[in-house]
Amino acid sequence: MPEQSRTKLRRKPRRGSHDRDVLNGILDEAVVCHLGITDEGGLPVVTPTLHVRVENRVYVHGSAASRTLRSSNHSDICLTATLIDGLVLGRSAMHHSANYRSVMLFGKGEQVEDSQEKRDALKALIEKLIPGRWADIRQPTDQELRATSVLRIPIDEASAKIRNGPPMDDEADLELPVWAGVVGMRQVFDGARPDQHLLRDVTCPEYIADLIS
Amino acid sequence: MPEQSRTKLRRKPRRGSHDRDVLNGILDEAVVCHLGITDEGGLPVVTPTLHVRVENRVYVHGSAASRTLRSSNHSDICLTATLIDGLVLGRSAMHHSANYRSVMLFGKGEQVEDSQEKRDALKALIEKLIPGRWADIRQPTDQELRATSVLRIPIDEASAKIRNGPPMDDEADLELPVWAGVVGMRQVFDGARPDQHLLRDVTCPEYIADLIS
Repeated sequence: MPEQSRTKLRRKPRRGSHDRDVLNGILDEAVVCHLGITDEGGLPVVTPTLHVRVENRVYVHGSAASRTLRSSNHSDICLTATLIDGLVLGRSAMHHSANYRSVMLFGKGEQVEDSQEKRDALKALIEKLIPGRWADIRQPTDQELRATSVLRIPIDEASAKIRNGPPMDDEADLELPVWAGVVGMRQVFDGARPDQHLLRDVTCPEYIADLIS
Repeated sequence: MPEQSRTKLRRKPRRGSHDRDVLNGILDEAVVCHLGITDEGGLPVVTPTLHVRVENRVYVHGSAASRTLRSSNHSDICLTATLIDGLVLGRSAMHHSANYRSVMLFGKGEQVEDSQEKRDALKALIEKLIPGRWADIRQPTDQELRATSVLRIPIDEASAKIRNGPPMDDEADLELPVWAGVVGMRQVFDGARPDQHLLRDVTCPEYIADLIS
């Protein structure tokens, strides 16, 4: 992922809604992000975690949030979400790269205390991954919500980095008889495996069939 | 990704080759990793980058390596590679999760100075992504190699975290008439788009056709 082929988009008010849409689109499409913290000893720790964007905030929950929350004196975080769109094959070794879209979000995580905000964040997370799921499932109890850590990260300082398009070979290499181009990549759903304890009359709901079709 | 459903495998000599094989398998299958550093101000920075494992070392190159290398006084890194295998759908909101395999690698990055080691690392990186490619392309010149940053991270302190299998619903929820199970996910290749400047008699090589078939 060479620096020269990156388009860096700083989300600043004067850049208008376009950049924000780009940022939001990447955050919304990425299933997981990687949450970086600096631990008590000053060492970096990067943890994968599910995330969801709601307006101008990102929520993560679970153990990643807990770990970050425990590092309360070092609560600066960097949340990075990356989508790989393809492998870029140049005619020379040096011009091999990847097409990707990535967002880096810097800020301080804030522990969500409000029960309704926690509930809304969990709902948004599940609906992001499986639209239509929330109405189908047992809702969280107050006790479950109290036992859940949810971290909120405001989208204040963020940047998107994007590489797309063909290889950028050296002019002199264009005459080489070497195949060059882009091999596309994407993440796909790959069937649904019912739980073995499923009640007999429970069939796969339409919103899951839609997802995997 | 709740903590209770994780299997944590510490790679220690006494755990034998099994854990090491698991670690290696995840590192080898993941196209990108996320490289975390602590910057001069003590803040975490997490950058996506291509990586390759060669025996007991991981190499990254390009801008991520450069940035890490510039932070020479804070050269502890955490390299995390994650594969998403599926979405886990429980009967209750709290038992929604993801199946995944992840490796966290802690250590100090070492700048590769030796020209042959740089060349070998680039070859390994390209061959990891597109087996058969190296023999086909223009090799790096000495000048190109000098201009390239390659970072070597020894696999000394590393752990794998894996969640797989069905949802782990509460006993009392098993009677709910709610579909539960796992929706599989995987990353796939998605066709090859030739560069527009390709010479007319250059066809798509077999090693690329094999990759995308």
